Amino acid sequence: MKHSDFVYFDNAATTKPFISVTEKIAEAMNYNFGNASSGHALGVQAFRTLELARKEAKISISASEGDVFFTSSGTQANNLAILGAALANVRGRHKKAITCSTEHASVLNCFRELQTRDFEIVLLNPDRNGRIDCEQLDKEIDERTFFLSTMFVNNETGAISPVKTFKEIIDRKKKLYGKNIIFHVDAVQAFGKVHIDVTRLGVDLLSVSSHKIHGPKGIGFLYCSENVRIKPLIFGGSQEKSIHPGTEPIPLVVGFEEAIKQFKISQNFEYVTHLKNYFLEKLEKVGGMKLNSPSNSTPYILNFSIEGIKSEVMLNFLSSRKIFVSSASACSKGKRSHVLEAMGLDKSLIESSIRVSFSKFNTVEEIDILFDEIRNARSIILKF
Amino acid sequence: MKHSDFVYFDNAATTKPFISVTEKIAEAMNYNFGNASSGHALGVQAFRTLELARKEAKISISASEGDVFFTSSGTQANNLAILGAALANVRGRHKKAITCSTEHASVLNCFRELQTRDFEIVLLNPDRNGRIDCEQLDKEIDERTFFLSTMFVNNETGAISPVKTFKEIIDRKKKLYGKNIIFHVDAVQAFGKVHIDVTRLGVDLLSVSSHKIHGPKGIGFLYCSENVRIKPLIFGGSQEKSIHPGTEPIPLVVGFEEAIKQFKISQNFEYVTHLKNYFLEKLEKVGGMKLNSPSNSTPYILNFSIEGIKSEVMLNFLSSRKIFVSSASACSKGKRSHVLEAMGLDKSLIESSIRVSFSKFNTVEEIDILFDEIRNARSIILKF
Repeated sequence: MKHSDFVYFDNAATTKPFISVTEKIAEAMNYNFGNASSGHALGVQAFRTLELARKEAKISISASEGDVFFTSSGTQANNLAILGAALANVRGRHKKAITCSTEHASVLNCFRELQTRDFEIVLLNPDRNGRIDCEQLDKEIDERTFFLSTMFVNNETGAISPVKTFKEIIDRKKKLYGKNIIFHVDAVQAFGKVHIDVTRLGVDLLSVSSHKIHGPKGIGFLYCSENVRIKPLIFGGSQEKSIHPGTEPIPLVVGFEEAIKQFKISQNFEYVTHLKNYFLEKLEKVGGMKLNSPSNSTPYILNFSIEGIKSEVMLNFLSSRKIFVSSASACSKGKRSHVLEAMGLDKSLIESSIRVSFSKFNTVEEIDILFDEIRNARSIILKF
Repeated sequence: MKHSDFVYFDNAATTKPFISVTEKIAEAMNYNFGNASSGHALGVQAFRTLELARKEAKISISASEGDVFFTSSGTQANNLAILGAALANVRGRHKKAITCSTEHASVLNCFRELQTRDFEIVLLNPDRNGRIDCEQLDKEIDERTFFLSTMFVNNETGAISPVKTFKEIIDRKKKLYGKNIIFHVDAVQAFGKVHIDVTRLGVDLLSVSSHKIHGPKGIGFLYCSENVRIKPLIFGGSQEKSIHPGTEPIPLVVGFEEAIKQFKISQNFEYVTHLKNYFLEKLEKVGGMKLNSPSNSTPYILNFSIEGIKSEVMLNFLSSRKIFVSSASACSKGKRSHVLEAMGLDKSLIESSIRVSFSKFNTVEEIDILFDEIRNARSIILKF
């Protein structure tokens, strides 16, 4: 489908690659196709390309030390962070790892895996606004705790985690118990949209995905501070210091690097904030509309429910008019949102929730179209 | 580097993507960029694309049943096959898994991982021709054996495994012990170069990589027969039936599918056999040349040593003349070949080994250039 044929508001699920990203990938496939582990000039060229991109990735999160490991996805970065750190740093049973019940499936399912390996896991529940109670977190971090994982920006509601406050609690507890507590941030929905400085934030592990910022699918990275060791989950050659073995996909690396370079945070942020506010202003006039995104959320994601219209019905209605939104995380494919459930929303709100996620490529005109069709849907569907 | 600027004989490390592969990827990035898990029309389009490619992949190995799971690499396919099958099928300790000492690092390191998890592992040594003694294999398969892994074509020497004979032994043992023995074939160097029929071969698990057949890097697949269960190593959403979670990289899937369609086995095989024989005929006239590839090897890979010239020296000499060959597997990056070592070759032969690997894009003229420069290297280097 040509982009001009439809209106795309599902940017939290995935984004359209920048034209320059596609071009760079094609160029690399034609002229820089060597194996980065090969000793000849074409291999060396590939290896240099890889290391330049790694440098760019480190700069993008202000990492002054530590490593950036390219992975095949945000999911794989999260797995390496959680399971890789657990395998490398923890001896003994019944150690405690803490996260929130509103995390992405890749984090929650890693925690479930930890549980089968005799770890104690704690899933903190957020309040009605998707916010974790810091007092509760404080209470849960005890001397057995070795790991805290939080997502920077929630993929369904856009809620922003108080990463700085979490870090302060961790630091206090570290001093108290004289033990290390590893801090992992899933920044898949935050990277390129919020300024991230891992050094200032004091984050040990940070996961990023390329295809959420108009880069190619099939690549992400994990930042790993020098204070933290991780073990591989996949075994093979010495690529990515054996942490993520397999022939390095240089064209994807190049495309990811280009997306990082193209993505201008401040500029986009302002524009997208404008779009969201414009939409919100209109939306508030629709009867039966209930906002599910908390006030402290990113402008890129807006979650709301329209009373009496099931998510799937609205989604299909809009899709038939070539307007693409989503009901929840794409990864949960049709299942009821565990995020809104954890926030304690009523069943009827959850079942009618809609996620509209913006990008710099959206326009005010597209928002007018979306709004008109939502109003249309309401008057047509609610008639029956 | 433009391809016309150099001569590429490192096709076992990686290949130049077909032009049509690059075009298809760019097209998908522009027009089919949806998330295959999204419910709207763009998501559905992506999902359909994925399933069509899966069908093509199944046809390419004549799979009449079972699943094809797309993975991020051949390495990840091998890991899923070996560790995934061990996790899913084996209860109890000290079960036995068998493979050869000449396997790829991703297989050997999975076996080492099995060893740390209380499995007994057996690495069979090949003879001087890279051949596994079938009697030895017969003896090793006992009632504790649950797994046999073999590579179809060796990546360093091109040696072809007697997959059919292995399967016969397995079937006999299965009857004898009344137990299942899982048969995994690493077909990364065989796929597209040897006719593969998993149904006839009776293979349970088969690993394939895209970038060895002029497809994109960052994708491979694992065939899994319906008789075998595997468990995921990475946890997340429900993509690839939760066996390999993470947003499906549709552009890579499309590129891989195109490479599969483009790769005409019989046609290439004949042409490459002609190239190899032409080269071999010339090479045999070079003094001090010793062939390391066995007679029953694929025409795509030729391994030989030239007395008195270390691999790295020859590789660099040729690279400086824009001719790209390799010393061993790209994945082992500079380390001495464990394959030639396992075959019992003399140290001097191992340290001077060169792998020349062909593709349909190579020409007789390029072989003349390669040959002339090898002769040049010999007369220049041996002078000192």
